[in-house]
Amino acid sequence: MTKTSIITIGDELLIGQVIDTNSAWMAQELNKAGIWVNRRLAIGDGRTDILQALKAESAHSDIILITGGLGPTADDITKPVLCEYFNTTLVINEEALENVKNIFTKILQRPLIERNLKQAEVPASCLVIQNKRGTAPGMLFEKNGKIFIAMPGVPHEMKGMMTDNVIPYLQKRFATHFVSHRTLLTAGIGESTLADLIQDFEISLPPDIRLAYLPNYGMVRLRLTANATHADKLEDQLNNLFANLKSRVSEWMVTDQDISLQEALGKILNERKQTLATAESCTGGHAAQLITSIPGSSAYFKGSVVAYDNEVKIKLLGVDPGMISTYGAVSEETVRAMVRGAITLLKTDFAIATSGIMGPGGGSESKPVGTVWIAAGDGQEILTQKFWFRFDRQRNTELTTVNVLNLLRKFILSKPEKAV
Amino acid sequence: MTKTSIITIGDELLIGQVIDTNSAWMAQELNKAGIWVNRRLAIGDGRTDILQALKAESAHSDIILITGGLGPTADDITKPVLCEYFNTTLVINEEALENVKNIFTKILQRPLIERNLKQAEVPASCLVIQNKRGTAPGMLFEKNGKIFIAMPGVPHEMKGMMTDNVIPYLQKRFATHFVSHRTLLTAGIGESTLADLIQDFEISLPPDIRLAYLPNYGMVRLRLTANATHADKLEDQLNNLFANLKSRVSEWMVTDQDISLQEALGKILNERKQTLATAESCTGGHAAQLITSIPGSSAYFKGSVVAYDNEVKIKLLGVDPGMISTYGAVSEETVRAMVRGAITLLKTDFAIATSGIMGPGGGSESKPVGTVWIAAGDGQEILTQKFWFRFDRQRNTELTTVNVLNLLRKFILSKPEKAV
Repeated sequence: MTKTSIITIGDELLIGQVIDTNSAWMAQELNKAGIWVNRRLAIGDGRTDILQALKAESAHSDIILITGGLGPTADDITKPVLCEYFNTTLVINEEALENVKNIFTKILQRPLIERNLKQAEVPASCLVIQNKRGTAPGMLFEKNGKIFIAMPGVPHEMKGMMTDNVIPYLQKRFATHFVSHRTLLTAGIGESTLADLIQDFEISLPPDIRLAYLPNYGMVRLRLTANATHADKLEDQLNNLFANLKSRVSEWMVTDQDISLQEALGKILNERKQTLATAESCTGGHAAQLITSIPGSSAYFKGSVVAYDNEVKIKLLGVDPGMISTYGAVSEETVRAMVRGAITLLKTDFAIATSGIMGPGGGSESKPVGTVWIAAGDGQEILTQKFWFRFDRQRNTELTTVNVLNLLRKFILSKPEKAV
Repeated sequence: MTKTSIITIGDELLIGQVIDTNSAWMAQELNKAGIWVNRRLAIGDGRTDILQALKAESAHSDIILITGGLGPTADDITKPVLCEYFNTTLVINEEALENVKNIFTKILQRPLIERNLKQAEVPASCLVIQNKRGTAPGMLFEKNGKIFIAMPGVPHEMKGMMTDNVIPYLQKRFATHFVSHRTLLTAGIGESTLADLIQDFEISLPPDIRLAYLPNYGMVRLRLTANATHADKLEDQLNNLFANLKSRVSEWMVTDQDISLQEALGKILNERKQTLATAESCTGGHAAQLITSIPGSSAYFKGSVVAYDNEVKIKLLGVDPGMISTYGAVSEETVRAMVRGAITLLKTDFAIATSGIMGPGGGSESKPVGTVWIAAGDGQEILTQKFWFRFDRQRNTELTTVNVLNLLRKFILSKPEKAV
């Protein structure tokens, strides 16, 4: 089976100031195309580190994908080091030069400086992959039967190059292996309880089908992967096993597709032609942001009131100030009133509401940090839930958002489609 | 100088379904503590891959930090592989067992299953690091003068262990090297233009002080790092160089501290005791979410109206429907009206507004995908800006948010502090 290494180059990855989202995306796309990633390595902008990594990774893998270090600043040294490794020199690539000039004069409308012209230089021995989204071209090398491809680290430039050129090329050349996935998403059940529930299923899997647990923020994704030299009847077998898995976890299943909770919720609202609003205190707009991250969400999402201040809860959402002083802003009564208020104000079929203490400050004896109330409902009925999260501000916010979106999903599905 | 490798274990990282935020955080914290990370490697849950990585990384580095593969499910094999590598066997650790029992009976209030008891097993030869936040204990090994520390992959468990135990231990044992940073954040200037502007500054840096460019979503962070065996007068020298750097980029500087734009904005509002609201269309709550991600933001942030639907812009923010039909929702007139509406509705000193077409759909000849109008102002004056972003939905949203927060920051700073 073809092996792949991804090398990301840049001190910023070792300082930790930048999170490497590139290599996760690359792995995902390669995987879908039937190319398995075995190793991902991040190293700094140092000549010896890069040379050593090229040598070591080509001993491990058949395909070595490299990103980063192609920028116009002095700390970007990938190109000269590639020249050294492949024993070649830098030459101007005319097409890349045209591209650089075009970007500066027509798109950026900024003067073209010397430094940027250097972006059009490439090692003489490489096959040039033109960059349609930026100034740094990609480079393909072959040495002792191993393929090396260097790409810029700017995410959308790398992604465009991968999709347009690199994956089609690699697939044609290497992807003879059969790889197929089935994925479902669960919420509200822990990884170990889930594992116990499906232990006998997991044990009974044939050797060429594997089950992976992918936990993330109160949800666990389960992925069945068939991986074999021949497809045979594997696709049918995979479908049967997936049907079995789905029936076992149906109680907690959010979706049987490889999509997010917010996308699954959007599909339901789209199908039913119903609309949604959010009234957010502690999540501060995060629920609205997740909902609107889905293209086309304007069809079912009308808007949100982020009522961070109690005054906003009272004035916009019509929450009774007496209720807030009696029960507190973090209470079942308040989130119920917020749902009602949002439905009235934004004229939607459904609304969700959140109120809680995300930390690190703001907790009390009776309502410690992490206390959260959520609500989801329509004009007639509202479901509520209380949580006590013991994590940091960001994780508490994420968990609250996931739980309130899932509460709404369950609420909507509990209603007959025709009747609403 | 002490060298460190971080190994993250888990097929989910190679499938690409999980983004590795752990190792960025670890690198950042280690770096602050004067411990340099040289390599970050991600591998799958395979026995030979793990054994090979332990061997290879200990040839590169003095410290090998390992995360992941310590969960209760069958695909987690880090513990038995560590036993094989260090030639030892698994034994029950009594303190870890108490911890597991305690978590299940008192905190989760779920029945304790056999699978979870295995979490208390550790290799006999390791030094156990107790986990205060979860069931999987950490493990410290020493072999041929190299330190190996295995931690769970759950972010808040790993972070707690790093902060409480691992970093203090490593610092005591290894951090004799002097490392110091100065960081500033710029917005509105490209990386290469910035590099040209400070080229002579960069060339004149002494060999033990380095400059790094860390670009991210329309902003570039500049970091000066002193790295030497002795502190000598390096701290003074670093201060002088940093003052020089600041004066050169002052026009674009957002903050001279290692904080985010939203934190810098929060500090200004806190100092001036002024308040803010957001009126968001295309950013869908992202600006509010960034603002509220800062602890204590309730002191200056009152709330937001996410006016995704035009009806909400009209009804809540008082935008004139005639204006929307004349100029469109994505127009200078609309974002101005949104700012005025938010200030009136939420009774704040300042408001920001966004309206744009984030893609992939919704564009037209005159307003292509990526067209965005932003506004920031107070009751008297409103600044606006138009953009044409050519990226994907997520990046367009991030860039819009960064630009509108920065526009407000500049607007506030243009006003005398006393007069407002």
